[in-house]
Amino acid sequence: MSKVFVHKLRVRYGETDQMGFVYYGNYAQYLEVARTELIRSTGITYAELEKQGVQLPVVNLEINYRNPAKYDDELRLETTIIGNISRKICFYTKIFKEDNTLVIEAKVELVFVNVKTEKVVSCPEDLLNKLKGFQ
Amino acid sequence: MSKVFVHKLRVRYGETDQMGFVYYGNYAQYLEVARTELIRSTGITYAELEKQGVQLPVVNLEINYRNPAKYDDELRLETTIIGNISRKICFYTKIFKEDNTLVIEAKVELVFVNVKTEKVVSCPEDLLNKLKGFQ
Amino acid sequence: MSKVFVHKLRVRYGETDQMGFVYYGNYAQYLEVARTELIRSTGITYAELEKQGVQLPVVNLEINYRNPAKYDDELRLETTIIGNISRKICFYTKIFKEDNTLVIEAKVELVFVNVKTEKVVSCPEDLLNKLKGFQ
Amino acid sequence: MSKVFVHKLRVRYGETDQMGFVYYGNYAQYLEVARTELIRSTGITYAELEKQGVQLPVVNLEINYRNPAKYDDELRLETTIIGNISRKICFYTKIFKEDNTLVIEAKVELVFVNVKTEKVVSCPEDLLNKLKGFQ
Repeated sequence: MSKVFVHKLRVRYGETDQMGFVYYGNYAQYLEVARTELIRSTGITYAELEKQGVQLPVVNLEINYRNPAKYDDELRLETTIIGNISRKICFYTKIFKEDNTLVIEAKVELVFVNVKTEKVVSCPEDLLNKLKGFQ
Repeated sequence: MSKVFVHKLRVRYGETDQMGFVYYGNYAQYLEVARTELIRSTGITYAELEKQGVQLPVVNLEINYRNPAKYDDELRLETTIIGNISRKICFYTKIFKEDNTLVIEAKVELVFVNVKTEKVVSCPEDLLNKLKGFQ
Repeated sequence: MSKVFVHKLRVRYGETDQMGFVYYGNYAQYLEVARTELIRSTGITYAELEKQGVQLPVVNLEINYRNPAKYDDELRLETTIIGNISRKICFYTKIFKEDNTLVIEAKVELVFVNVKTEKVVSCPEDLLNKLKGFQ
Repeated sequence: MSKVFVHKLRVRYGETDQMGFVYYGNYAQYLEVARTELIRSTGITYAELEKQGVQLPVVNLEINYRNPAKYDDELRLETTIIGNISRKICFYTKIFKEDNTLVIEAKVELVFVNVKTEKVVSCPEDLLNKLKGFQ
């Protein structure tokens, strides 16, 4: 059974817009924090990965907005990995409010890229093994 | 035949990230500018719409990232409306670089909401008529 | 002696720019988080304050940038209040890296505003008493 | 007499916060656009400058917030250069609304840095000559 990685963060004032809710574009940062922390939980950091010459640009983003989040809400981000990890990796995140209201559901697909050659490469073996539990 | 609304904007320094490209989440703002300007081109502004009590929260966002955009690139945003306009409206935007490289393709679906009742409503008739050309 | 409020946060990828450091404008959000959490530590939240009809718009901002912060750095924000709290309040924040390198020093001055009348008002007594320790 | 460089931009929805005004931290991006466009007006671009190995990190920022700007406001940014241009350059910008209300006054001080050596250097002669008119 796939593990779910849970991370919490609080909505900042500057992340809201005049509608009084989190601006729809700002969830991209939350999703990035969720996958960064999921990777960190395996003992590898994305920062190290980049230093070793592997980058993970996003190739596809899909967000379903279900209920608005507000300033100062403490959000719970639940993240798993869907599909196989190969040259691509797809993170699936649900964001909830403290009362368990679903805020958004999102899929983010990224590719592994060798910084020097700028070519798509396979997920480093080491990372692959550590991420398997989240699939 | 559907009209395409064209708008240009230049990438700001603060919109890039350390990968040297526009941060994937920042395209949401560009897409917002594109639909705002499309609406303005009909003679109605989104700002007026909100003052009249109609808001347009985003319910779905989908972005395919094709090629990275860089600082100072002048981007061309081509926007049309896909499907029927009812309680929902769906904007489809392609972003190009000056050399016509495709940067992203994106679909943004929004709903019309009455600010007071917080209920979903139909697109105001006036706006509907003006937007028809872009379908 | 004045208390110093300490808060930690981690630099997000989207907060860096192509120079490879935190974009100079993004520190404003960090400073906002620091004062929000300082206020929360007194048992009052800024969110409640706004609901009670008091807003705190920023009237002056001054930042000295000393050393760059990078993606994934865990920053330590040390905040005190300088001067008297009256209709204005001035927060002073130093941000450090884990190795104690000073990143920025900043002063943020805000005024208390009654949301309904849009007039500047005095700091609510309750809050004033709770903030005194940080002066 | 010093020339004033004028640039106009429109406030984006995502740049507002729940107070209904432009978030205080977002002016940093506007100021960056103002100085970028001032430099471009001389025939040199900041993008080229970076490619030639010179970066301009911000070392000091000071903003006085006078009146709030709103979504969809068309802002007029008037920029000059104050003091001597040496290893440092200081831009002074006033932002106005269409009705000439002053929104903010700001000073941004930057240093010229050689990307390779990471040392502070003098302003390139070529740029210096072109910027003199704005002093």
